[in-house]
Amino acid sequence: MAEIKRILIKIAYDGTEYSGFQIQPTRPTIEGKINLALSELLGGDIRIEGASRTDAGVHALGNVATFDTPSSIPAEKFPFVLLKYLPDDIRVTASREVPLSFNIRKMVFSKTYEYTYSCGAIEDPLLRRFSSFSRVSPDVLAMKEGASYLLGEHDFTSFTNPSSQVFEWGGSAVRNIFSVDVWSEAGGAGELVKLRIKGDGFLYNMVRIISGTLMNVGRGLWRPERIGEILLKKDRTAAGPTAEARGLKLLEIHFKDVTI
Amino acid sequence: MAEIKRILIKIAYDGTEYSGFQIQPTRPTIEGKINLALSELLGGDIRIEGASRTDAGVHALGNVATFDTPSSIPAEKFPFVLLKYLPDDIRVTASREVPLSFNIRKMVFSKTYEYTYSCGAIEDPLLRRFSSFSRVSPDVLAMKEGASYLLGEHDFTSFTNPSSQVFEWGGSAVRNIFSVDVWSEAGGAGELVKLRIKGDGFLYNMVRIISGTLMNVGRGLWRPERIGEILLKKDRTAAGPTAEARGLKLLEIHFKDVTI
Repeated sequence: MAEIKRILIKIAYDGTEYSGFQIQPTRPTIEGKINLALSELLGGDIRIEGASRTDAGVHALGNVATFDTPSSIPAEKFPFVLLKYLPDDIRVTASREVPLSFNIRKMVFSKTYEYTYSCGAIEDPLLRRFSSFSRVSPDVLAMKEGASYLLGEHDFTSFTNPSSQVFEWGGSAVRNIFSVDVWSEAGGAGELVKLRIKGDGFLYNMVRIISGTLMNVGRGLWRPERIGEILLKKDRTAAGPTAEARGLKLLEIHFKDVTI
Repeated sequence: MAEIKRILIKIAYDGTEYSGFQIQPTRPTIEGKINLALSELLGGDIRIEGASRTDAGVHALGNVATFDTPSSIPAEKFPFVLLKYLPDDIRVTASREVPLSFNIRKMVFSKTYEYTYSCGAIEDPLLRRFSSFSRVSPDVLAMKEGASYLLGEHDFTSFTNPSSQVFEWGGSAVRNIFSVDVWSEAGGAGELVKLRIKGDGFLYNMVRIISGTLMNVGRGLWRPERIGEILLKKDRTAAGPTAEARGLKLLEIHFKDVTI
């Protein structure tokens, strides 16, 4: 029997048709489809270990996962050999071998998410899968100012669902945000407003609640400084609505030593 | 009974789920869905007259159509009042009144189409609905040079399906191309190669055959000058393959006097 290797894969998906990343017994999930594809390709019962459990309807360009196999397929070839086993809306885009000691969740250095609003009088139907619609064109500079309060280390209790497992597990809601930007660009028939945020980790629903809250600032309902006040309250009801899943994309995950 | 008015509407759609624009008895079509929405809104049996019968799977940001109604709904309000009658992937994005003498097909001055290839080792699944995939990154400058042979008035028999109705009807295959451009831009995980072409009209499959033929040039299979030679042959078999429908978008239609 050949030696067991650990393979790190990079994954892109259109999350529209899936009940999120994490495997569930009766619903279609990203993890379920990838486990199935790998098991069909390699035989046996392969189970990936993912770095990020994106919600139902959320998309990814650069989610990552590992799996172990004694297969002699060259580690870099998995994107190609998996093509015929994966549905059209899920792709393994890169792969490499990592040491067996590589624990994917412990090795994450940063995650980058992007949230997209499409703005205009009437929604552009070509953008609807990957953006949330806003009839109002928000004040992007006010959103940028509001977003600046999120930079650095904070307790993000106000920006997560109170039912988050992090609380059940007695974990911390402190996260470190490395960078955040909000900008506007032309897209399709109208204007796209995008939020990009990078941090050492994100709580359940955190980017979607940040997006919905900053939209309240952009629409002029709240002053930018209110973002700082919401953080201090440590109370979900102080923040704005949870923006729709379809507007959210996991762009990339960086590790401490390994690149993919 | 109120006076009959003619209403011009601008239409955007994700064509993925439709058997093209033109109404068919048993298949879902853009025209069928809009007729149904208008008939439900206004009562009676409303039938639109469209300017462009896009193929199955082709998208539009700016197709146009007219219909007649005695309704007192202000002409500009149709995008909003139709919202709840249309499926999510079809939107009326603008509307205005035009004279009853306005014959939509006769009034078209130009149509602009865009074709998109997504290029990379592995297809980005977030781009798959609105682009065709190419594993090879084509030589964009060679495609641009090839495309320049299309400018002006030519017989485009080589660039249409021989079963095109234009031949059944004894019509002309001469069309005037006003502008054409090919460029590359970053998009999603990789590179997008786009072709944008504007002309006084396009034959059946013409933009898709032009796109497939220019891709042969971009891949280095054919010299750019071959585009000129293909035009002269007036023979479909001289041109390249018909590129996939999903990469094609009808961007806009301009009229002689009216704007929308």
